[in-house]
Formats: sequence, C-alpha cells, structure tokens
Amino acid sequence: MVGAGQLARMTQQAAIALGVELRVLANTHDESAARVITDTRLGDYRDLAVLREFAQGCDAITFDHEHVPTGHVEALAADGFAVHPGAAALVHAQDKAVMRERLTAIGAPCPAWARVSSADDLEAFGKEHGWPVVLKAVRGGYDGRGVWVCRSEDDAAEVLASGTELLAEAFVPFERELAVLVARSPHGQGVSYPVVETVQQDGICVEVIAPAPGLDPEQAASAQHIALKIANELGVTGLLAVEMFQLPGGQVVVNELAMRPHNSGHWTIEGARTSQFEQHLRAVLDLPLGSPAPAAPVVVMANILGGDDPDIFSRYEHVMAHDPGVKIHFYGKEVRPGRKIGHVTALGTDVEEVRARARHAAVHLATGEYV
Amino acid sequence: MVGAGQLARMTQQAAIALGVELRVLANTHDESAARVITDTRLGDYRDLAVLREFAQGCDAITFDHEHVPTGHVEALAADGFAVHPGAAALVHAQDKAVMRERLTAIGAPCPAWARVSSADDLEAFGKEHGWPVVLKAVRGGYDGRGVWVCRSEDDAAEVLASGTELLAEAFVPFERELAVLVARSPHGQGVSYPVVETVQQDGICVEVIAPAPGLDPEQAASAQHIALKIANELGVTGLLAVEMFQLPGGQVVVNELAMRPHNSGHWTIEGARTSQFEQHLRAVLDLPLGSPAPAAPVVVMANILGGDDPDIFSRYEHVMAHDPGVKIHFYGKEVRPGRKIGHVTALGTDVEEVRARARHAAVHLATGEYV
Repeated sequence: MVGAGQLARMTQQAAIALGVELRVLANTHDESAARVITDTRLGDYRDLAVLREFAQGCDAITFDHEHVPTGHVEALAADGFAVHPGAAALVHAQDKAVMRERLTAIGAPCPAWARVSSADDLEAFGKEHGWPVVLKAVRGGYDGRGVWVCRSEDDAAEVLASGTELLAEAFVPFERELAVLVARSPHGQGVSYPVVETVQQDGICVEVIAPAPGLDPEQAASAQHIALKIANELGVTGLLAVEMFQLPGGQVVVNELAMRPHNSGHWTIEGARTSQFEQHLRAVLDLPLGSPAPAAPVVVMANILGGDDPDIFSRYEHVMAHDPGVKIHFYGKEVRPGRKIGHVTALGTDVEEVRARARHAAVHLATGEYV
Repeated sequence: MVGAGQLARMTQQAAIALGVELRVLANTHDESAARVITDTRLGDYRDLAVLREFAQGCDAITFDHEHVPTGHVEALAADGFAVHPGAAALVHAQDKAVMRERLTAIGAPCPAWARVSSADDLEAFGKEHGWPVVLKAVRGGYDGRGVWVCRSEDDAAEVLASGTELLAEAFVPFERELAVLVARSPHGQGVSYPVVETVQQDGICVEVIAPAPGLDPEQAASAQHIALKIANELGVTGLLAVEMFQLPGGQVVVNELAMRPHNSGHWTIEGARTSQFEQHLRAVLDLPLGSPAPAAPVVVMANILGGDDPDIFSRYEHVMAHDPGVKIHFYGKEVRPGRKIGHVTALGTDVEEVRARARHAAVHLATGEYV
C-alpha cells in the first residue's frame, strides 16, 4: 500500500486477520501506519524509481491516497505489477473533469458542469445555471480544500487568477449527503454496502449514519446501482466510495469519487460483517469478496477532530467509563486543531440515541466538552 | 507483552484501535506477533536481565503465555514496574497444586484432588475416589500435554517414575465443558463474558459456542459468579479464563485457569462488543472495562489445526467464496500437523447452522475436506 496514513493503519488490522503481509510506503517511521507495520519502506511516492523498488515482491499494489501520479501507476502496470485500482480507473478519482466527462457519458446523475478557465467562461456558466456556482480544483482537493462556493464572479476572482485548473458545477440545493461504498474485484465480483448519510461541517465529514435514516428502499437500491455501475464502467478494482447529494425530491446526484477505503466506511469495522479494510484487501488480491451485511440495526461513526488541548488521556478514560459499548479508534497522530486523529463508533437500534452516544464520545475526546 | 504468539498478534489489532503502542518480547522476528509489531525486542523470557531491559519505558507489563518464572514476575514488580497479572495471582495459573489449594480454600468447586509423589499416594487416592484418576503435571502442561487419564496404577507407572511433580484429581464424568472469561482491572472493576461451551478433541479445543447452548440462566449466572469470585480472591489483573466441567446435574467444577487472552475467547473479536484482546489491554492499563455484550445471538469459533498439506491458498479462496460471512483469522505461522494456525468465526441465530458453517470453514482450510 502506497501511503501510510490512518487508512493503511486500519488496513493492517484486517491484514493481520487474513494473514496478509502488508507493506507500506511511508514518508517517515512516525506516520500513522508506519508505527504498526513492520514492513515499512521510506520513500517519495512521486518518484517512479522509489515505487518500482517498493513494488518488488508484492502480489498487489494499492493506495492509501490518490496522489500517486497517473503516469507512475501506468508505468508500474507496464512493468507487470498488479496495480489496483489501475491508472485508467484511478484517474477518475484524481481528475474531477475526467470524472465528470465519464460519468456524464455513462449516464450517472451529475450536476451541470463545465471546465472554466476565465471570467468569461464563468459568467457564461453562471448565466446558464444560476448562482451560486461551485468552483473546484480539477486536481488535488480534499476535505473541502479545492472547493469554492461562489455567489458571484467577484467571489471567484482570486481563484480564477491563481491559475488553478478549474471546473464549475451548478450549486446543488441538496437536502442531505449520502455515500455508497462498493467493492469490485479484478474478476468482476461486486458488492455494495448499505447507503449511509454523511454529515459535514466546514467541508469535513464529522458523522456517518448507517444505514441512511428514512431512505426509501427503492432510492437506496437505485443509489447502490449507480455506484456499482460506476465501479464496473470505470473498471475500478478495490473500493469505490461514491459521495452523493440527495435532492428534496429524493433523487441523487454524484458529488465525488474516492478509490480506496473511505471515511464514510469506517463504521464497517464493527458495523458490517466485513470491514471496508478487509474488503479492500480481498478485492485488490482478487479474493472472493466478503459479506457487506450490517452487524447492527443502526451504526454511527463520528470523527475525532483535534482540539486545542493535546492531552487527551483523562478524556479517553471518561469516554470509556461513560459508555462501555462505544468503540474508540486512534490513529497514532499528533493532535492538531481540526486534524482527524481518530473516530468512534456506536451501535444500537435507535438512531437518535446512537448518534448522541457517538457525538458525546467524539466531541468529549476532542475538546473535553459534554454534549 | 512478554511472548509473541498469536495472542500477542491479535492483541496488536486491539492496540492499533486504542492507540496503545504494543511492545513484545519474542524469540525470533518470525514469530506470529513479531511479524506485525514494529516494537519487537528479541530475548529469552527466562532471563531476568532481559525482562528488566524489555520493561524499560512500558506503562504495564503483561503476558502472552504463563511460562515466565514467578520469581522474575515478583522481581519486576519490586523494581516498580506495573506487572499484570502480578506474581501472587499468576502463580495460580502456573502451579496447579497452588491453584487447587487456593480454590478449595475460597470454596470454588473442584474435583477431589491431592498431591501425589509415589505409587502408594496414588493407590490411596484411587481407593478413596475411584478410578480412573487424572494425573496432572503441577507445572508446564497445556493443550492436553501434562495430563494423563489413568485407569489403574499400571497406567501411571511411567509418569510416576519420570520425577514430574504431580497432582491427582478424581475423574469428573462431565457432560460437557464450559468456560467463563472475566476481566478485572487493578482498581477492582470486573466484567464477565457470557458462558461458552468448549469442544475438545484429543485435549485440544476445536470449537467454542457462545453462549453455551441450553444453559440454564441461573447456572450461567452461578458460573460467572464463580469466575468473578476467583478473579477477585486471587487478585487477578487482566483476563482470567476459567475452564469448567459441567456435570449431568448441571453443577460445575473448575478444571483449569488461564490468566491471559484465551482460545475460548477468540469468538469475542467479532462476537462481542469488546474483544478479549481489547479488554485485556484495558484491564492491564487500568482503563475502564468495555462492554462484554454479545454482538449476535449465536457465535461459533472453530480452530484451524494444521493438516498434512501446507499449501492452503486454494482452500482459503474456496472458504471465502463459499461463505462470505465467515471470518478468517490466520496467525502467520508455518503449517504443521495439529498446530493451531488460525481460527474462523461464524455468527448467526441458529446454533446448528452456525456450527456447521464454522466447522466447514475450519476443516476445509485445514484439510481440504468438505464437511
């Protein structure tokens, strides 16, 4: 696995059970996954020679993030390495314009969109689709970075002037955000997890509710069908997370794609029969996929975002004592304000009760507040 | 954690989630846990100097096995290290005569027993309690080793002549075997997991059914009470597994004690809200204990015992495809006939169906047979 963040760290838990020997490419031995993986190699993933050396002896190569240059991914495959997802699929998670073109071509629901490179382009787009307009960096954005909601051309002036390659999308007046996580293996098997609701704050996911409360079963099936179709049409191998907006009428439009274990799937560690991390390993190794069946009627995951006080130990004790059933996950990362340093998962039957438990634990761990 | 077998390996999965940095003392870097723990130190646990060096900087010291000499455990505590369980408790899992004396003193149900060192002692014991008589090595036995069921003095001649320190116990005509896993923390909090049934073959546990089918709730509560009482009276810190025989009338007698994560608790990884490995870490670190509540109505764990053919990959694929819901755990150990190389866990609602699923997976992985 190229990259040694928390996704690789949690993949190691699954690898231990499966008897899979996981190697990671890290920047330093202090990184989240490097702390818990014996076969950690250090090097820069932007350097093809480093990637080639790293890949030697691996049965499959996969990724903890989407930043490996597409050309390097192609080169590794040309060398004969089994790279999952491959470059032809991965580019859709790296380049939002390529993603929009392809989704439009296969009939997946998208907001109106266009490449824009000038104030004139933007003015024309705003005229046709109305304001606000969402500008997105074609490459490199994540967790709300690289996304600008512009109410007018003035709002966009600075971004347009920066020279960043941009995409304009019509603002979607969504009711809530959903996500569908699917897995697809090289031999073509696919599975979909239940549709979840994701709750964002300042562009960062703070909470995931599985399954999405009150979602009509037909709409849920339709959302899963869209995600599986995207995985199939794009030739995704491994996991694909499809972030969606749900409109007031119930229909969905696709917002973003990720091709790796995803924050919207952390609930599966305890909440599904097969965790997304195990599923990703099974998929990239072309093993039969595991059951995505939920393990409880309601599962809520809440992210722990670093607060101002890095000394979390007494809060850790409080949360354990307060709720012996809540599951705590720390990523071995230094506490910095706003940084995802861990998550908690609560399981039960009543949505509001389970949400309150997860929120209490995550907020208290982060800040010491009682909510 | 002193020792780097599969118990330490599975403890690492829990440590990763809790953000606990786990260090192990291993014999080689090839051992089960050493393969997945970056902070692996090599050394001989029988050497006190090695243990002292190993313990430097650890918040707590605990064990993957019970073979560390009691005196060394005492010495580490005298140095000021937090050792859990402590020597005064651990000795009861190391010395079966000390265990029987203590359990008898606190009123825990035991078979008739006596220390024996000669044919005369044994003859007297057999006369009083009848044959067969079970001879046990006072120290060092496990997985059926160090236990001899003798139908007559002749059967016992060789063992008696060997000079092994021995205990005689009346043969218990049990109906089945049960186990109760409890945890106790230094500040005195205790929890008990549901009582399970363990199924042995040739003295080796092959299957664990949680909860024990058809067990009367009062008898279950009584068995849990016995285990918690033993943990409390002996001052156990960490996990205590109490293996019991259930007699035809329903009452139980204590067979063996273990003070560490135990094979009878592997089902808790997916089958309980808190796995035994997480629970052990919480207990030895004096953190609040986690909920032992079951995560499914029926959970069955079956051990994978190495067969004659070490090439298990195609069988691994079969089992994954055959039953996408079964959970596979491999220990990263070389396959040798009869060796515990992993386990599988199945969850569901119908005992016989779940047992059949677990058995199919474990037997097929081991031998390629379809059962």
